[in-house]
Amino acid sequence: MIENESPPVFVETVCWRNGCVRILDQTRLPAEEVYLDLGTVDEVIAAIQTLAVRGAPAIGVAGALGVALAARLALHTRPANADAMMELLLADARSLADARPTAVNLAWAVERTVRVARGFAALQATPEEIAVQCLAEAEIILREDLERSAEMTRAGAAILPQSARVMTHCNTGGLATAGGGTALGVVLAAQRLGKEMFVYVDETRPLLQGARLTAWELAKAGIPYVIQCDGAAAWTLRTQSVDAVLVGADRIARNGDAANKIGTFSLALAAADAGVPFYVVAPRSTFDLDLETGEEIPIEERKEEEVVRFHGTPCAPPDARAWNPAFDVTPHRLIAGWITERGVERPPFHD
Amino acid sequence: MIENESPPVFVETVCWRNGCVRILDQTRLPAEEVYLDLGTVDEVIAAIQTLAVRGAPAIGVAGALGVALAARLALHTRPANADAMMELLLADARSLADARPTAVNLAWAVERTVRVARGFAALQATPEEIAVQCLAEAEIILREDLERSAEMTRAGAAILPQSARVMTHCNTGGLATAGGGTALGVVLAAQRLGKEMFVYVDETRPLLQGARLTAWELAKAGIPYVIQCDGAAAWTLRTQSVDAVLVGADRIARNGDAANKIGTFSLALAAADAGVPFYVVAPRSTFDLDLETGEEIPIEERKEEEVVRFHGTPCAPPDARAWNPAFDVTPHRLIAGWITERGVERPPFHD
Repeated sequence: MIENESPPVFVETVCWRNGCVRILDQTRLPAEEVYLDLGTVDEVIAAIQTLAVRGAPAIGVAGALGVALAARLALHTRPANADAMMELLLADARSLADARPTAVNLAWAVERTVRVARGFAALQATPEEIAVQCLAEAEIILREDLERSAEMTRAGAAILPQSARVMTHCNTGGLATAGGGTALGVVLAAQRLGKEMFVYVDETRPLLQGARLTAWELAKAGIPYVIQCDGAAAWTLRTQSVDAVLVGADRIARNGDAANKIGTFSLALAAADAGVPFYVVAPRSTFDLDLETGEEIPIEERKEEEVVRFHGTPCAPPDARAWNPAFDVTPHRLIAGWITERGVERPPFHD
Repeated sequence: MIENESPPVFVETVCWRNGCVRILDQTRLPAEEVYLDLGTVDEVIAAIQTLAVRGAPAIGVAGALGVALAARLALHTRPANADAMMELLLADARSLADARPTAVNLAWAVERTVRVARGFAALQATPEEIAVQCLAEAEIILREDLERSAEMTRAGAAILPQSARVMTHCNTGGLATAGGGTALGVVLAAQRLGKEMFVYVDETRPLLQGARLTAWELAKAGIPYVIQCDGAAAWTLRTQSVDAVLVGADRIARNGDAANKIGTFSLALAAADAGVPFYVVAPRSTFDLDLETGEEIPIEERKEEEVVRFHGTPCAPPDARAWNPAFDVTPHRLIAGWITERGVERPPFHD
């Protein structure tokens, strides 16, 4: 049955290849499709920080594979025993988890991989065994990410009408995950169910993940779309017939408040005003149940450079200052449903 | 008294010089300050359409000076009498008025200049006299624009606290008028009154009038500011202490609905949600009292190119489509006050 098919993986966003973390360099899309084999932990961290690999689930997988890489590299120093191995591993794991602050998936996946290592270390496994188990756990996290994508995008696709006009922000397709996508994955899944889709793509300043990456994925899938400036979204929602707004998330608090790419909160306000349902699509690994509300979510501020230059060309006076929060928090009151691998859920959230 | 000072004119946005319409080419700011002497009506139309001169009041002045230029050029064909002169003039005037559809100031200023020409033609004035009167009327419109700016920016500055953090969209400073500004003019006027100003500048995609032009004007005036992506505005309003949002307008209906640069409606929704007062600053020439509501305002759609390329560099896949409405309409329910040369007004509006 078509509903049980795995989503086609257009690209391998992040995977393990030849002892390296292989990523598709998203900073160079859509102009070039270049894969990078990252052979050191610092390279993995840099790839996460420069957004060569990005999207909350994808950087989770990259973080877990980064721990596996750290474990493998630690063997070169011939650690005497499990404790010596863990000491090396934990330092790298901390750096990986701290590479970006907002998406909880990164810390979650690093911690989960470390926990496995710790378990084997407690059993006095050899450093080699610990390294093998780290990689095995990272590969499980990757495979689970693909499965979760399939489940949540199926749940999301089910609630869309046969012919739907959807609006989306940033990139939440295969590129934002190990391959299956979150919010944009719902659109791709609906198309596979034979539904007719049209997408309004927010360009998503400053780094244009919508114009560069979402448009690239939609073109590959043969789904018609238009790119719009972020500031046009409210007007589109008011004047065009849009059935739903679908966005991803980087961290969701217990009450449902959701951190996502800057501009999401603005979009949610516009959707509420226009009466268009606004859905957050994210795996359960994006939920941070330690946080009661979104006010506790740390918001990354990125370089002013990203705002005052555009593809390297200055677009402001030489000494211009900028304020560049990379995320915002959409309050739960503006969200119609949280689509996870368990279906369409509502707060408060529990394990 | 300082309150009675004219606003300092930093730049001559648009004026009459040596038988030409002289404009500062705003497409080249902030990198270069280049003045263009436009010697044909087609050049004036092209300058308006490419946004070399832009801002509702400024294109009104450019349109009026364009009629004066048309009249002067018509003399070269030695029209036999006033009727022959008017025939030539009306064709050019129509093209000028139609150069851009949304800002009513353009059609208003062209029509006002033509009305003077018509009056003299009815008295069987010579073609030379008609040309002289067109230029005189255009110069009056320019001077009135400066006076209106001084009056409305004084009215706006009076309602700001001694130390104010203001948010603004697009460019509404001297560059958007003959020199005095509308919304950004309020900020400049408040600074001249000794008030301490800080400005959050929406970059204003796609053409970045905020990042390029507003930042340039604020830097010249020595007023501290930060540029933000348009999508960040809602988050700024929610998390920072902003005292007021000030925007310009391109056309205002009788009920107060206001068309302005795309992104304004989104900003108004965010201001309403954050409880920050949202003001529209525009001269009375921006009011179109023939329109009952904003639904009747024509909205210009501009080239897709503006969205999918930046300074010639593609920022989307090669065949990407875009939707590029240049304006949106903010419903009056979201507007706290309309600041004109008459003070802070409220709808319904009458002559």
